[in-house]
Amino acid sequence: MVKITEKIRIAIVGYGNIGKGVELAVNRNKEFYGDMEIAGIISRRPEDVRAQINNKYPVAATNDLSLWKDLGSDVAILCGGSKTDLPEQGPFFAKHLPTVDSYDNHNLIPSYFQEMDIVARETGHPVVISSGWDPGTFSLERVLANAFIPGAKAYGFYGLTVTGGLSQGHSDAVRRIEGVVDARQYTHAIPESTESVRKGENPDLSKGEMHWREVYVVLRNDTPEERARVEQAIKTDPDYFAPYKTIVNFVLQEEIEKNHSQMPHDGLVIASGISGNRNQFSIEYKNVWESNPEATAGILVACARACHRLNQEKKVGAFTMLDIPPLLYSPHSKQELLKKFM
Amino acid sequence: MVKITEKIRIAIVGYGNIGKGVELAVNRNKEFYGDMEIAGIISRRPEDVRAQINNKYPVAATNDLSLWKDLGSDVAILCGGSKTDLPEQGPFFAKHLPTVDSYDNHNLIPSYFQEMDIVARETGHPVVISSGWDPGTFSLERVLANAFIPGAKAYGFYGLTVTGGLSQGHSDAVRRIEGVVDARQYTHAIPESTESVRKGENPDLSKGEMHWREVYVVLRNDTPEERARVEQAIKTDPDYFAPYKTIVNFVLQEEIEKNHSQMPHDGLVIASGISGNRNQFSIEYKNVWESNPEATAGILVACARACHRLNQEKKVGAFTMLDIPPLLYSPHSKQELLKKFM
Repeated sequence: MVKITEKIRIAIVGYGNIGKGVELAVNRNKEFYGDMEIAGIISRRPEDVRAQINNKYPVAATNDLSLWKDLGSDVAILCGGSKTDLPEQGPFFAKHLPTVDSYDNHNLIPSYFQEMDIVARETGHPVVISSGWDPGTFSLERVLANAFIPGAKAYGFYGLTVTGGLSQGHSDAVRRIEGVVDARQYTHAIPESTESVRKGENPDLSKGEMHWREVYVVLRNDTPEERARVEQAIKTDPDYFAPYKTIVNFVLQEEIEKNHSQMPHDGLVIASGISGNRNQFSIEYKNVWESNPEATAGILVACARACHRLNQEKKVGAFTMLDIPPLLYSPHSKQELLKKFM
Repeated sequence: MVKITEKIRIAIVGYGNIGKGVELAVNRNKEFYGDMEIAGIISRRPEDVRAQINNKYPVAATNDLSLWKDLGSDVAILCGGSKTDLPEQGPFFAKHLPTVDSYDNHNLIPSYFQEMDIVARETGHPVVISSGWDPGTFSLERVLANAFIPGAKAYGFYGLTVTGGLSQGHSDAVRRIEGVVDARQYTHAIPESTESVRKGENPDLSKGEMHWREVYVVLRNDTPEERARVEQAIKTDPDYFAPYKTIVNFVLQEEIEKNHSQMPHDGLVIASGISGNRNQFSIEYKNVWESNPEATAGILVACARACHRLNQEKKVGAFTMLDIPPLLYSPHSKQELLKKFM
């Protein structure tokens, strides 16, 4: 397809929470800076998406290569989950297009990077992996703080607001327990630990010393026995809950709809250290998001701008936010940045 | 000179507060990571420096080109001031060596960039300009926040601690007033304004609505008339003080030595905005430094590491922290960063 505008054309792959957030963020960038637009949506369930979006954009099926190539996209933002979607979709789409994703299985990032790097180099374009806020901007801030204050250890705290941070992964883990109809999990930072790090004590903190967890559960049969069984199942889950103090609240579905339908999250990177003269330094980076997927999407879209520019500069292979010159995220020109942002 | 180690060899140009901070920071990096060392100190007053450092490092005179070339430095960190030193030393040293500086005259950064870019390209190596925290990391955070939250305006506040931030420029301005023997100026943020920005109100704030100023002055003749005259002179200074609420305290020199001999500073970049769904986002980046020059030096030294790597990659011309891939600041390998920092 001949490109008809000079805008960066974004394909949204997957139309869940993140995909919808990307739609909002691209349109917001379009409104403010006019440098990008949505090329279309690529989905495994194109009919469902068409029904939702009322012909606002073209929709292509994931397996219909010729149709989604017709979208004329410069960059595809892959909005699937890291557990099953991205390990498959990442290499698949990277064969055809520059991509941006939010692959967040921290332990497997090195091997995912390598796999995506090989695919992208074979085709000869860039891909940006593991973007968003953690991994993503928080990774960036950990690296920066550690470089600027030699020897400083960077800590991550989540859920510093009164509400706490809604964790999709932990909510899902509770929903998988037999007898649970619905669930929400809020992560809370433990303020004493944040304070200790802020003071420069560089404490050794176990998981349970940094955060506690609050769960709202709707049961199929709300009996005392069921409550006891499910509470026990949650609190003894070895990965998600056992290391933490956990408070379980049993509620009605109506309460979930009314008070827990939002997806807020927030976090803090904090690092401190001393100079050779024992003067103390601290660096804090804090984000508060009323909507976690929409905030993540805002970062993914800035990464798509950077990815497109890397492509224009003929850069190839996999990139993380650690590899990208920061001005590439910005809608403003180099001259404008030197003048107004330095 | 034949390079005898694989360490990055840093020449320190100027041995004032920043130069001494660079010495500390290089040695701190050497201790933790072993990847750099001090090649020597270059000064306009080499004898003074020799007397201070007790032969710890070679010292060369600024005008003795052959001697300072003998230091075998990979990067020179220029530690002079932006008013008179750097406009001269920047282009002079950039002709011979990759350099890092903290040029901070915000209005003139575009032209300084251009000048340094031309010199560095002629010689064929990189230089990093306007590093430190503002300009520097704060510039970086302004650009990032504005890119990740489209339309967000980034605000800078300084002096959020009880002490406030010691401003060298404002202290100097007071010292230049006739009859003033010594002075210290602390900048203080106005908390109500920080709060308004944090709430996402994106207010239009005048300078005086963001900060107030606190001055400690030692007079040659401490009489009521002199106090009135000097206070008036400070408060009506059009650039430094007139736009701000300013409190002037007259003190004895002993009090300055006892309570105001440190150089603390701190600051906050804060930006907020909304998604297309009107969900609110905020990003805050806060630094607290017990010693401003030593903190600045820590960042300059990380920039020297990046500059050396840009040089190894055969990159040429001027760079700011907006242009540098963040992993280049880090002492850790790419594999280690992917594994431990993402």
